[in-house]
Amino acid sequence: MTVAGRLAQIAEIGRDCVRGGYSRHLFDSTDAPLRAWFRRSGEELGLIVEEDADANLWAWWHPPAGPAGTRSAIACGSHLDSVPGGGAYDGPLGVASGFEAVAQLQAAGFAPHRPLAVCAFAEEEGSRFGLPCLGTRLLIGSVDPASVLQRRDAAGTTLADAWRDSGRDVARIGPDPERLGDLEAFVELHVEQGRDLADRGVPVSVASAIIPHGRWRLTISGEGNHAGTTTMDRRADPIVALARATLAARDVARDAAGARATIGRLRVVPNGTNVIASRVDAWLDLRAQTDEDVHRQYGRTIERIRAEVQAERCALDVHQESFSTRVDFDASLTARVAAAVEPEFGKVPAIPTGAGHDAGILAEVIPTAMIFVRNPTGVSHAPAEEASEEDCEAGARALAAALRSLAGAP
Amino acid sequence: MTVAGRLAQIAEIGRDCVRGGYSRHLFDSTDAPLRAWFRRSGEELGLIVEEDADANLWAWWHPPAGPAGTRSAIACGSHLDSVPGGGAYDGPLGVASGFEAVAQLQAAGFAPHRPLAVCAFAEEEGSRFGLPCLGTRLLIGSVDPASVLQRRDAAGTTLADAWRDSGRDVARIGPDPERLGDLEAFVELHVEQGRDLADRGVPVSVASAIIPHGRWRLTISGEGNHAGTTTMDRRADPIVALARATLAARDVARDAAGARATIGRLRVVPNGTNVIASRVDAWLDLRAQTDEDVHRQYGRTIERIRAEVQAERCALDVHQESFSTRVDFDASLTARVAAAVEPEFGKVPAIPTGAGHDAGILAEVIPTAMIFVRNPTGVSHAPAEEASEEDCEAGARALAAALRSLAGAP
Repeated sequence: MTVAGRLAQIAEIGRDCVRGGYSRHLFDSTDAPLRAWFRRSGEELGLIVEEDADANLWAWWHPPAGPAGTRSAIACGSHLDSVPGGGAYDGPLGVASGFEAVAQLQAAGFAPHRPLAVCAFAEEEGSRFGLPCLGTRLLIGSVDPASVLQRRDAAGTTLADAWRDSGRDVARIGPDPERLGDLEAFVELHVEQGRDLADRGVPVSVASAIIPHGRWRLTISGEGNHAGTTTMDRRADPIVALARATLAARDVARDAAGARATIGRLRVVPNGTNVIASRVDAWLDLRAQTDEDVHRQYGRTIERIRAEVQAERCALDVHQESFSTRVDFDASLTARVAAAVEPEFGKVPAIPTGAGHDAGILAEVIPTAMIFVRNPTGVSHAPAEEASEEDCEAGARALAAALRSLAGAP
Repeated sequence: MTVAGRLAQIAEIGRDCVRGGYSRHLFDSTDAPLRAWFRRSGEELGLIVEEDADANLWAWWHPPAGPAGTRSAIACGSHLDSVPGGGAYDGPLGVASGFEAVAQLQAAGFAPHRPLAVCAFAEEEGSRFGLPCLGTRLLIGSVDPASVLQRRDAAGTTLADAWRDSGRDVARIGPDPERLGDLEAFVELHVEQGRDLADRGVPVSVASAIIPHGRWRLTISGEGNHAGTTTMDRRADPIVALARATLAARDVARDAAGARATIGRLRVVPNGTNVIASRVDAWLDLRAQTDEDVHRQYGRTIERIRAEVQAERCALDVHQESFSTRVDFDASLTARVAAAVEPEFGKVPAIPTGAGHDAGILAEVIPTAMIFVRNPTGVSHAPAEEASEEDCEAGARALAAALRSLAGAP
């Protein structure tokens, strides 16, 4: 088997005919087939597959057997969900590479001295319920299960109802300190989401840090009215206010080195051709190099947006959906991973990333590291996301080398 | 019965819990109950109810009986569909008032000397298939049935499929010159969609003209990418381009007296929180005093929008969805309607409107006139649209007076 062959097994699950690429969200129609593929992939390698109370999947090559919390297990993996119309690699590449690395280690006769798991974490993108890294946040207890269960998807369904309808137990969700106590390290392999490796001409790297980011939902309320009978001077049009807000957010981000501001998701009410809208919800995604930078960027951006919205006689309501602090990956673990891949790949770069990852959430409680695989287009969260077959195989060999080093004889 | 009582009978059909108000579209789940109400309302008055080949409803007080095309019938009415989240009056008020006017004439022992119909025309708002006044445009033959049947709703369903699924015959749709040849005049009663009558302090008026308007779908294409890893200088973000386009369209409309420009409907692809969009569809609605004014406004607007979109390294594609030319209502018919209501209401104003109406479409082939009923909020196409019970009754009396004059003894 190859990484490409493993990805081909799920290539038809969740294709998005409208947006292109893939739409795979928690507990939608793609969820069960993707979990079935994970189970089959693990069982074909003789791994023991289980799902934890937070809907995360674990495929164990020797599950932890000693006293709970002895911190000896090594885990790798990523996630299987996507953004709406996402690429084929963001998430699945890390899971498929985990299975492929285990297959390579088994073929090479490697006998792990520690429990070793391949994972697939739930709703990493947060595309259905708005909270990225839902599965790992629940697992480590950084979010309150009761409030998370009240979140609603675009159709108004609560996570609690979706969880129950999927046949799972809402009473069990929440932190699992014993499981975390068994883990010594987590390594996430992921397609790069920029062009750094393509520019450097190298197939793999390790990660130095995840830059912080926050998400806010802006609700801009105006006065719904008839597009033909309402003169221009009598309008309170939230789409015009949104236009001014969008440009303000972009201007603030451009003024600060390394900052990013994105409005990529809109909901217009009532969304009629011949109707001035009454309300627009817009999701604002801000990122910068440090937590303080993001807070400062947010303050400047909202001040500007509020003025622009009020100038259009509309009202602004702001709701913070998430904040992910800066993560510096564990230096010692990252050095071990880099050293493990050096025999084949030479000295690999350590690059920062603007994207959030489960490895960033788990970094709060255990040492974590990441391996990036080159993306020739630099595009991610879109159908044009890419990784060559050769680079995917290189990534799996790099991950195998890292796991051999981490799970091998001391 | 009263007009308010008739509207109360359909008050629970198509309530929109998300947007507020009503969402009633062609062949959706509200369509059959609304048609059943129309049939019942007509039959209770002894009218003969039929549906024409274009899904328009007719309730006849004595159907035309002479040789086809003798041009003696008088029709009134409006439509039952709404914009998404529309008000309770736009459309249904004209239909309910038609039945109420017939009931009043019957109670007064009036014997019409001509065939008299109450009508409800299909998909006046164009909210489902993008073409306003679908039913009357088909009826008079101003649109090609074959191309109209290829139109798709937001879910991708063609009008042809929706038409067939509703149990109707697509082969029959199209112009009906015989039916039109039987009509001498059409009078549409409608809630006013501005505050002109409220400002003047009068309950009813007639209409002088409908200002022209066009609708265009703008497709702005950029480069979908990751919101965190894509630096600001590398972006081709169609939502930023849309922001600039929105402000440009508004600026052009503000510069021309009496012009209106509205973007009230958006579709974002893929519409993810942490994704730079790859494409935005935006519907542009332009109105001005004359056809030439709209054409000039369109030329200026698109030139400005194209420049703004290109400045954001995005591409623009423009598709015209409809164009409704200026309509000056028949002066002689309008004078007869005004004279008929004068005994009760005194001299009523004749006001122009920025909204399109079936009476505007039918004006191409037969004399048409309109009666407006005061709207205290001036809001329309939104839940806040209003008409007092007293004004609704005044409207029905005005319509009854007009029908008595038009259908009475010569």
